[in-house]
Amino acid sequence: MSQIEVGILGATGAVGQQFIALLAEHPWFRVKWLGASQRSEGKSYQDAAAWRLRVPLPDDVARLSVDAATPGRAPKLVFSGLDSSVAGEIEGAFAQAGHFIISNSKNYRMEADVPLLVPEINADHLALLDVQAASRGWKGRIVTNPNCSTVVLSMALAPLRPFGLKSVMITTLQAISGAGYPGVASWDILGNVIPFIDGEEHKIETETRKILGCYGDKRVEPHPVTLSATTTRVAVQDGHTESISVALANRPPADAIIDAFNAFKGKPQQLGLPSAPAQPVVYMTERNRPQPALDVERSHGMAVTVGRLRPCALFDYKFIALGHNTIRGAAGAAILNAELMHREGLL
Amino acid sequence: MSQIEVGILGATGAVGQQFIALLAEHPWFRVKWLGASQRSEGKSYQDAAAWRLRVPLPDDVARLSVDAATPGRAPKLVFSGLDSSVAGEIEGAFAQAGHFIISNSKNYRMEADVPLLVPEINADHLALLDVQAASRGWKGRIVTNPNCSTVVLSMALAPLRPFGLKSVMITTLQAISGAGYPGVASWDILGNVIPFIDGEEHKIETETRKILGCYGDKRVEPHPVTLSATTTRVAVQDGHTESISVALANRPPADAIIDAFNAFKGKPQQLGLPSAPAQPVVYMTERNRPQPALDVERSHGMAVTVGRLRPCALFDYKFIALGHNTIRGAAGAAILNAELMHREGLL
Amino acid sequence: MSQIEVGILGATGAVGQQFIALLAEHPWFRVKWLGASQRSEGKSYQDAAAWRLRVPLPDDVARLSVDAATPGRAPKLVFSGLDSSVAGEIEGAFAQAGHFIISNSKNYRMEADVPLLVPEINADHLALLDVQAASRGWKGRIVTNPNCSTVVLSMALAPLRPFGLKSVMITTLQAISGAGYPGVASWDILGNVIPFIDGEEHKIETETRKILGCYGDKRVEPHPVTLSATTTRVAVQDGHTESISVALANRPPADAIIDAFNAFKGKPQQLGLPSAPAQPVVYMTERNRPQPALDVERSHGMAVTVGRLRPCALFDYKFIALGHNTIRGAAGAAILNAELMHREGLL
Amino acid sequence: MSQIEVGILGATGAVGQQFIALLAEHPWFRVKWLGASQRSEGKSYQDAAAWRLRVPLPDDVARLSVDAATPGRAPKLVFSGLDSSVAGEIEGAFAQAGHFIISNSKNYRMEADVPLLVPEINADHLALLDVQAASRGWKGRIVTNPNCSTVVLSMALAPLRPFGLKSVMITTLQAISGAGYPGVASWDILGNVIPFIDGEEHKIETETRKILGCYGDKRVEPHPVTLSATTTRVAVQDGHTESISVALANRPPADAIIDAFNAFKGKPQQLGLPSAPAQPVVYMTERNRPQPALDVERSHGMAVTVGRLRPCALFDYKFIALGHNTIRGAAGAAILNAELMHREGLL
Repeated sequence: MSQIEVGILGATGAVGQQFIALLAEHPWFRVKWLGASQRSEGKSYQDAAAWRLRVPLPDDVARLSVDAATPGRAPKLVFSGLDSSVAGEIEGAFAQAGHFIISNSKNYRMEADVPLLVPEINADHLALLDVQAASRGWKGRIVTNPNCSTVVLSMALAPLRPFGLKSVMITTLQAISGAGYPGVASWDILGNVIPFIDGEEHKIETETRKILGCYGDKRVEPHPVTLSATTTRVAVQDGHTESISVALANRPPADAIIDAFNAFKGKPQQLGLPSAPAQPVVYMTERNRPQPALDVERSHGMAVTVGRLRPCALFDYKFIALGHNTIRGAAGAAILNAELMHREGLL
Repeated sequence: MSQIEVGILGATGAVGQQFIALLAEHPWFRVKWLGASQRSEGKSYQDAAAWRLRVPLPDDVARLSVDAATPGRAPKLVFSGLDSSVAGEIEGAFAQAGHFIISNSKNYRMEADVPLLVPEINADHLALLDVQAASRGWKGRIVTNPNCSTVVLSMALAPLRPFGLKSVMITTLQAISGAGYPGVASWDILGNVIPFIDGEEHKIETETRKILGCYGDKRVEPHPVTLSATTTRVAVQDGHTESISVALANRPPADAIIDAFNAFKGKPQQLGLPSAPAQPVVYMTERNRPQPALDVERSHGMAVTVGRLRPCALFDYKFIALGHNTIRGAAGAAILNAELMHREGLL
Repeated sequence: MSQIEVGILGATGAVGQQFIALLAEHPWFRVKWLGASQRSEGKSYQDAAAWRLRVPLPDDVARLSVDAATPGRAPKLVFSGLDSSVAGEIEGAFAQAGHFIISNSKNYRMEADVPLLVPEINADHLALLDVQAASRGWKGRIVTNPNCSTVVLSMALAPLRPFGLKSVMITTLQAISGAGYPGVASWDILGNVIPFIDGEEHKIETETRKILGCYGDKRVEPHPVTLSATTTRVAVQDGHTESISVALANRPPADAIIDAFNAFKGKPQQLGLPSAPAQPVVYMTERNRPQPALDVERSHGMAVTVGRLRPCALFDYKFIALGHNTIRGAAGAAILNAELMHREGLL
Repeated sequence: MSQIEVGILGATGAVGQQFIALLAEHPWFRVKWLGASQRSEGKSYQDAAAWRLRVPLPDDVARLSVDAATPGRAPKLVFSGLDSSVAGEIEGAFAQAGHFIISNSKNYRMEADVPLLVPEINADHLALLDVQAASRGWKGRIVTNPNCSTVVLSMALAPLRPFGLKSVMITTLQAISGAGYPGVASWDILGNVIPFIDGEEHKIETETRKILGCYGDKRVEPHPVTLSATTTRVAVQDGHTESISVALANRPPADAIIDAFNAFKGKPQQLGLPSAPAQPVVYMTERNRPQPALDVERSHGMAVTVGRLRPCALFDYKFIALGHNTIRGAAGAAILNAELMHREGLL
């Protein structure tokens, strides 16, 4: 199969590095262009970026020259790990100039004509791209993936839709890598919990409803579920752990819930997309799982692990969900989005 | 004031060490007797116990000879930090022999004739001691304090009783010191979250209702509130953080809730007990507090800190509470219980 | 190639689990027998052992029945991860009964007729096996690998032998996994340093000299280098970091040292053994490396990473070395030993 | 005693906050002026600074208005916790304008006419102030304290001077608070060791010789000891641990070394200065001490704890030293310097 050239916006940042790592041996996509701030322009990537991941920086990317974050020399397909403070303007400019932006940033997620995509859940939301083309007049497009804690939650909730999701109470215990780099100061988190992440609760409460919503009549109707979120930061490197209680319209027995988790599949699995986990949601029966240190790498970080399903005295059931926040929750999510778009002929 | 001699059961364990530390300069109580397992019998305390606290082991206690965990040489007033695997039998034997056991163990907490005491909340439950005397035929008595995560929750809920507490959803992030010593293996918790603590959720859901309940007619009627708890362990040394949502029969404005937290007082404050925090519940207005690293030592570890009060989309309000699990949640709680009993003439 | 059946002594412990993980897809060796304490006897491995590694427990091993730690049903080749408190007796009994014991325990390491093997460094020490056969009268044999911190040091020193190693001062910062499981209590190490590891300094100071020594005349003459070690424990999951200063008889320029590190190779590389790292010692030029979080997994945990070479004001050079303590320093070391023995026709 | 008004330069930074905390109940000094960058000018301190210490921000300081870092409104005595990037210029300007600057920054430490003071060790170096007045023409003066890891080392070495200090090899394990705030990113240090601290090894190797040197003939002759340092960062909040080997001209028995540690005293103890620890160096006989988590707060963080004295196979003795890096190693050191100067009539 011929390789598709891709670019990365925000290439030197935390998400940008994760894009490079995950694309290192990708069967379809090949990194050919790197965009970053003016400070890095003209430098080789290895000089511009302090590589901080456990996997080595691929040699060919190390030698790529970093470009400015402006359209022009970039390939058609561009992954964006830009910070939200600049993503709105830059991603828009790229889309206008004809690029297909697969964005991890929050700026366009809740726009009515932008897909907020989790391919296992709402592949049909890609139909919004035609709406986007009509409304924006862009030659290119923008597709977004959710906030990292929202992906994990959405993957755990999607299998429960048949039971009539009514209410979701969630408290997260989020990894420090979710804050980017340098992100959380070690003085603030060593041996500590920070019970606040700016804007995160609102994202969970709104993005989840769009993700689980139905496409029809050129728009996405948000799912009627009501969510209430509390988000906290803990001294974990990678992996967001979520304590979730759900109220259901049609309370099934626990076994049916577990079966629904394990049987959950979507377009990526049907199409055999390269980054698709064979089983997107894995239920563990051990009473003390999932744990980030033990379970975050499941299916190369693309599967969500669930455990401890038990009755809730206030709602119907409660359980724990865990996912890799910089893979399933960021760069891996965006790559899966692009894989789906490629296979659907949308690139 | 003349000093009251006290003993400590389980003196070499984690709670026992905390008892010794907190009693080191106590104005009323003086440690004169230490009971532990046969392995330690006859040794000096400093030889029998590996002291693990940041505060130094007091010299006079260091030289005390450790006795067996049997009645006889112990003073009348005995604090018990025994493990629950042996506390049932040993504490019972001591009570039968005439000792007043101030127990931190779970064994007797839910017995109908045993006070589960949080002096700020339910000092009147000490009336159960007469019932206990009648039913057990013991010369001595047993008074208990709650499980560590339950104390923090109860202190945060007690001020809300006037608003008609109906439902409480809680997820805890608990410190490793709550598991005793050696407790949690470092391999299991470094950079990790363990989303399970054996028996803890049940304790929260049951003990809290007894604590908040009403005494009358020689029994405690549990509070009608329904609780649903999820408990997790995080890499924090001391301090349980709790994410709490509450439904109230009479929803007040947020200011009234905050005023209720800050104004909450009880018998210990009225009586000026030595270990009583001047303000038992302190509300912080900073948006990222309370944090265990910054707030756990408030009022020598005896105050509970609350923050982030905000509306809950599902219930009425949600907030974060934090307390010191081995002080307010264990040894300090027991000492406050004994102080109350002394001032009430019950010893 | 036909598979060789192997057994594992101490199969449920920390090193035993690492053996199972590393042998899961081994091209030559296949785990067919598991020996453990009586408590586990007769249970399936998954019931007997609480699996604690990030990689999944292989299904075929999970279903194996655990045997007692006695010779009889075990295959000829047996890896031993036994605790030193029992390894002396049990490993001896197995060797007498005809088994080839590849031991990670300290008990036989310093015996004059037992190879203390690091295949890159002293493959010729295997000649001691004939001496062992003659002196012990065993039908089987015992071969040992060094203590975990010693392996890392030895690998870093071996390339320097041509320059006349005279003196080595070392301070280690060792990972908690080196203490087995449950090993170090989280209360003791969270946010802390423990500047003492029982017996570890003596092992480094003695084992290293045997490893670097010369075989001749049916014995190993220890290397004349003098070592002085300080060992500490830090809050790191895997990876021992070592601060090393060396005095050399023939002080070369720094470049020659770096070249010696990078060029170092031995029998495992010549023979292409399955677990052999292509480059056993890798020098990094970045000024803040190696770091356990970033470098410990190099070559599947079998390479030692070195960095920060610079002049020492007291000796000649100082540098930092890092290696994976449970792979290169324990289970992986033993497997490489067995691979060498197999290829040399010694099994 | 009448209170002396003091100012703090760099008041919003990590060292500045520590100054405020330590001066909160100081018997002589009262914080009346706070200088910081223009960004903070005119704000109240509580609005300008995010308070990050475990002890509460004193109310009176919270309400102080922050001034620019320029002379004029500041009192005569000014503590400086400025970053070294700006300290050179600003501290010089203040000294010229007549202020007595007690500086924690590195800029003036190695100047020939500036005392690098550790009051227990070299109180007589204050004689350099007359040299400074003559050479600089300043109306004010600058006195410095050493780098944080150097203070701990110097305190541990000073008692050994009578035995003829010849060589010192040291490897440090330093706390993250030594890097200021935000300082070390949590991503870089959680579960990790960073074996490099920029410029730190040079500071140890040079500052120590000046501190231990002799004043005479209007200059300090550096001590002839040769030092070789390796510095690393570990996941510890407060407390630098140091592994030290020393060669001595006159090797005494170990008991004499221990006695020298415990008996060491200086001017601060003779004068009974408020921040002086009663025993500046404390030797612990337990085999696994000192540990930062257990020993860093000794004497309010002003004492250095030493342990594990044992023979060194290469030099004479080796041992472990520990001190609080932001108290004894920074703000507390500066305050002790000012206390000495006040009592000596030098302010």
